[in-house]
This record gives sequence, structure tokens and C-alpha cells, in this order.
Amino acid sequence: MDFAQTKSLFHLPEGVIYLDGNSLGPLPKAAAARVAQTVTEEWGEMLITGWNKAQWMAQPARLGDRIGRLIGAPEGTVVLGDTLSIKVYQALASALEMRPGRKVILSDSGNFPTDLYMAEELIRSLDKGHELRVVAPEDVAASITDEIAVTMLTEVDYRTGRLHDMAGLTSKVHAAGALALWDLAHSAGALPVDVTGAGADFAVGCTYKYLNSGPGGPAFIYVAPDHADVVRPALSGWLGHEAPFAFDLDYRPGRGIERMRVGTPPVLQMAALEAAMDVWDRADIREVRARSIELTELFVALVEESCPELVLASPRDPARRGSQITFRHPEGYAVMQALIARGVIGDFRAPDNMRFGFTPLYIDEDDVRDGVRILADVMQNQLWDRPDYRTRARVT
Amino acid sequence: MDFAQTKSLFHLPEGVIYLDGNSLGPLPKAAAARVAQTVTEEWGEMLITGWNKAQWMAQPARLGDRIGRLIGAPEGTVVLGDTLSIKVYQALASALEMRPGRKVILSDSGNFPTDLYMAEELIRSLDKGHELRVVAPEDVAASITDEIAVTMLTEVDYRTGRLHDMAGLTSKVHAAGALALWDLAHSAGALPVDVTGAGADFAVGCTYKYLNSGPGGPAFIYVAPDHADVVRPALSGWLGHEAPFAFDLDYRPGRGIERMRVGTPPVLQMAALEAAMDVWDRADIREVRARSIELTELFVALVEESCPELVLASPRDPARRGSQITFRHPEGYAVMQALIARGVIGDFRAPDNMRFGFTPLYIDEDDVRDGVRILADVMQNQLWDRPDYRTRARVT
Repeated sequence: MDFAQTKSLFHLPEGVIYLDGNSLGPLPKAAAARVAQTVTEEWGEMLITGWNKAQWMAQPARLGDRIGRLIGAPEGTVVLGDTLSIKVYQALASALEMRPGRKVILSDSGNFPTDLYMAEELIRSLDKGHELRVVAPEDVAASITDEIAVTMLTEVDYRTGRLHDMAGLTSKVHAAGALALWDLAHSAGALPVDVTGAGADFAVGCTYKYLNSGPGGPAFIYVAPDHADVVRPALSGWLGHEAPFAFDLDYRPGRGIERMRVGTPPVLQMAALEAAMDVWDRADIREVRARSIELTELFVALVEESCPELVLASPRDPARRGSQITFRHPEGYAVMQALIARGVIGDFRAPDNMRFGFTPLYIDEDDVRDGVRILADVMQNQLWDRPDYRTRARVT
Repeated sequence: MDFAQTKSLFHLPEGVIYLDGNSLGPLPKAAAARVAQTVTEEWGEMLITGWNKAQWMAQPARLGDRIGRLIGAPEGTVVLGDTLSIKVYQALASALEMRPGRKVILSDSGNFPTDLYMAEELIRSLDKGHELRVVAPEDVAASITDEIAVTMLTEVDYRTGRLHDMAGLTSKVHAAGALALWDLAHSAGALPVDVTGAGADFAVGCTYKYLNSGPGGPAFIYVAPDHADVVRPALSGWLGHEAPFAFDLDYRPGRGIERMRVGTPPVLQMAALEAAMDVWDRADIREVRARSIELTELFVALVEESCPELVLASPRDPARRGSQITFRHPEGYAVMQALIARGVIGDFRAPDNMRFGFTPLYIDEDDVRDGVRILADVMQNQLWDRPDYRTRARVT
């Protein structure tokens, strides 16, 4: 595939090297027109009839199928909606109900906190003696016992990019009689995922990172076909009902993945996602992965050469990490501010992680070389050592 | 206030009389530019830094305050996010936890089904012997006993527009030691609401009906100031955490209403809502209500005069209904299709309800007269009696 061509499909601001697509992807140029069309031609002209005429009602499933192709999910097994936190909750609640005799949710300390928070409060509200067991990422495999109801793991660690062995762990989970929920927030669009091959029971992810749907784009959920007609979603909104427009007083779950829908879907956000997925339709995720490895390898080599005080926090073996590289520095926050002021946008995660995302659809070797040159300048000349760079603002 | 002027602020398609703003409000003209600006100047140019620079992160609370002014909620007590179904769930779960000794959720059969579904599955997952007691709307007052933990009522019935006495019922609820959750989906922007004066404990609502935020716009939740720092939200996402960017492994609820946030807010949808609220800033909701009563009174009189076969399903007393009028007819579905084909857009709710919303910001007396003239033509000449009008499509 032609990465120069995909790069031309994104709006990248003048003078910016954007290494934060792992947090919020940039604007696909076509998204601006697509959203405008949805606003003026659909909402503006069709009004309420847009739900049918513009197929807004079918969008969550249609987009689900498009994302499914990137994560190895068959048609009709993925649906869009809500936020990742809500989708984690639905999957976890369903999983616990499928394993009533077991009381432990197993997760790891590298999981994104919202997953842990949702689990914590689910357990509290169920009040049935469940336990959220959080172990170190490297101890997950050894902690899969027959006490476990469900594992809740994020494939790619948001801090370091460390990659869990999804297929290997899922197989161990199943051997122990448990279920596997995978959070693909930092995987979908970053590397090939095969939920079917790995045998994942549930998977969730967000669309505003590597998939480039824009700020606040909806989440997605995958439920394995064997479970989809069995699970009873804890969050049972009207659009997950078998016949939403019958307005029955009693809930009957919809067919398959449709039951995981909750409320009215965010049509404007989905319009942006549609345009973003048009770019993905031109991409081969295996080629994206190969290119990502080239870029991260180059970045690591150049940074280690020119910034010896930075410590690599990501796995050195590219096969064991996602599409981001994290370097540690005690003044990482200030360094990142200095970098951003110079047009190299990465981000910072407490306590000392500087994250850099590599997204071949729009980041190339020149960006990597230029970015490292500026980073080296910041480090060698201590350009980060300014009070205003040390003052922490609220960043995502 | 000048209704001709507010009407000029909306895009209304040529040849359409839009009497369905109670389902999906039309496009405020400024929303197109505001959304485009958010897409190109904020997402496009600011990228991840938009969360601070464009204040995306503060938007849910800022918009909450703007909506608060329409429903009598003080600053800092309303926040935007998710869908109404999710917000109902959060409020209900919180209420049940505040009344641990009581087991009954009281609602009525005129409630919008998603509220009932969310309650039903909450009860099922708690598995502690709670009961969802659904009575006829007119029996609610007599059903408020000391068994009730929380009442879950929609102030304006989505089918008929019948209005509950919010202050009177809430007072009775409190006298019985219970809590009151009000769904304002068909109230906010339709008539003056005073959650403070009524003493509501929780309120939720959606923004895409009378508030005109566009398809899939986010919901809002109000928590009474006395409860806001007490409740523990069942859906505890990272943005409801006291310090989301500390990435702690344990959940600590944020201050006040902030804890009701869950995941990343839908920035593009909120941009449309901002523009919609600019229109509301020019409006006096009491004047809107007075005008709405004039319009609905005129509509009822004209329809009853010209279409004797239609049966009024809304309360005849305008003080006892919201801002919609419902007429019944056994062939209501086909009649509505015939009307829509002639540019008069209302909607249909099973089994036989034809709904017409009256929204003075952009609907005037001429619209009412023209709409009724077309309706009378459809009825008098049986223009609805065509097979294609009788075939039910999926509508909202």
C-alpha cells in the first residue's frame, strides 16, 4: 500500500509532527465534508426521517462490520455506541452472569484505569462477594486459576505499549473454564487483531485513537457469536430491545450483537467515523504493522543514540509491543511540554512516561527523524527546564 | 421575545411543516458552522491539545449549567454525557443505594420504555428482591407508600403529552421517605421546569428534542446538591474520578456532579448543542410556554372542527399537558405517512397515536393552520388509504 497517499488523506497542521495518534487520531480530510453533509443535508433536510432515509439507525451495526474487518470479527458481531467504559461494563456484567459460581475478575496493573473502576463499582453494586484481582502484567498467566470468572485485559499497555499474548492467554483462560474480555483501545488500527482466531469471548475498543473518528467518537463491542444470543446485557436500553418501536413495557433482548446497543447513537460522531473508515478500507493492517515496526525501531535507535538520559520503557522486541514507544525521564512532563511547544506532539502519563505513537497512515520516516532531532535539542540544551513547562495542566 | 426572530435562526426545509421537534429538533443554522469549526479548527488544528485549548474537557459541565437554567437547577448540578438510558441507570442505582431498606421502584405505564427496561435489568443484576411496580399514570399518587425506594416518572408522557404534577408528587414521595427521579425528556425546553422548587432528587433528560442538539446529542443528569457528594455512581468511569489524570488504580468519585461523568464526551455532538443553547439564551421559557399553549389550543380547535373522526388523546386542559398534541385514529400510521408525504411531519406511536409537537421557537400560527388544512384534506379525502402508507417502516 501507498503510505504517502494515505498521509495525503489527513489534515496535519503546518509545523506539527504528530506522535499522539494513539491518544486522538488526526482529522481525515474527508471527515469534515462528511460531517458537514450529515449536519446540513441529513439532519437539516431530512429531520426525523434521517433515521431511515440516511440510515442513521443502521449505522452502529454497519460501522461495527467495518471495524470487525480490522479485528478479525465476522459480520454481525460488532456494534458501535456509548463509551469504552460503558462497553466494558456490559461485557463484564455479562461474563459474570455466565460464570455464576466464580467470583474473581482478573486484571493487571497495566490496564487502563477506567476498566478497573468500572469493574470495581460493578462488584460493589452486585454485592455478591466478587473480587477484582489486579496483578502485575507479567504475572497474569500464572494467575489464571479456576477461581477466575473472567479476565479483563488490555492487549496493549497504554503506558508502555507492552503487548499481551492474546491468543496464548485466552487459551489458558478457556482451559481454566473462564471467559476472556479484551480491551483493544490501543490495538484496533495499531496491529492485526484476530478475536476469532484467539477465541476472545468479548472485546471492546475505542475509535478515536488509531481509527481516527475524532474527539469523543463512540466505542465498539464484540461478542463471540456463541454468546451473542445468550448474554443478557446489564445495560438494557430501548435500542437493544428486540422491537424498539413496539414500545413494549417489558425488555426482550434484541438479536445477537444488537442487544448490546443502549440509547440513541451519536450520529454526528459516527459520520466522522465513516470517513475515517474509508481511509482504513484502503489499508492493509499487516502492512501498517510492518511499517509501524520500522518506524518504532528507527525511533528507538535514534533516541538512544542522541538522548542517552532517556530510558526505554517499552519492550525492546517490536513483536512484544504495540504501535507506541515510551521513554522515561524524571522530568518527563516538562520535556513533553518543551517538545509540544516546538511542534512535536506526544503525551505524558504519570509518573514519568513520555509516550510517542507511530501511525503509518500519516507518519513517515522524515517525521521520525525530525522529531528525534528536536527531542535531542530539547534534551541536550535542557530546554525543558522552565517553570512554565513544569506546571502541570490537565492533559489527556 | 420575538418568535419570528428565533424562527429565522433555524433551518427548516422548503415545503415542510415540522411538527416533530418533540422527537428530533431541527438544525439551528449556527450549528452547522459551530460543528464545522470544531472539526476543522479544533480537532484539525489543535489535535489532542483541544481537550484543554478548546475546553472540550470542561464542556459537559459548562453545557450542564446552560441547561440547568431551563430546569431550575443551580450551577454545578447538571452534567452532560452518554444517553438518557445510561443516566437513568446511574440515578436509579444511586437512589436504591440511598434507600437500602426499601425494595420498590415505582413507575407508570406512560413512562418511556427505556426507563423501564433499564430499571428491570438493574433489578435483575442487583438480585436483591427489588421490584419495578408499574401502575397507570393516574394511580401514581395513590401508590406512593413507604415501600417505595424511588419513583421514576417522566413528567410529560411521550404518547399523549399528559403532564404529571412534579412538585405535588415529589412532595408526596418525600413524605413517604422515598426519592424522586424525574425524566425531563419531553419537558426541558418544552415548559418551565423547576427541579429545585419541586425538590427533585435526580433528573435526567435528552437534548435532541426540544433543545435541538441534533441526532444522538448527549443526555444530561441533575443531582440535588445535598446528594451530589453522597451518591456513588454505579457507572464509574475515569472522567468521574476525582483525579482522572492521576491514573490511580482505585476509583474515588469526583466532586459533586462531576462524578456522574463516565467516559470521553462526544465533542462534535456537544458543539451542535452549544449552538442550540445560544438560541435558548435568547428565549424566555415562560413566554415559550404561553405561546405553546396558544398554538396547541388552536391546533386542537381546528382539528376537532375539521377532522371529527380524530380523537383527542392529550388532556384537554393545556395546563395538564406538555407541548405536544396527540390524536388517535385506528389508521393513524397510514394517516401519518400520508401527512409526511405532503410535508407535514409528525410521528406515530403504537398503537394508534399520531403525535404533533409544538415548538414556538420555530413553529407559528401559519404552520398550525397550514398543517391542519393538509390534515383535513388527508382525512376528508381518505388520502391515507394506500397500501404503501400502511406498510410500517422503522421510525423513531
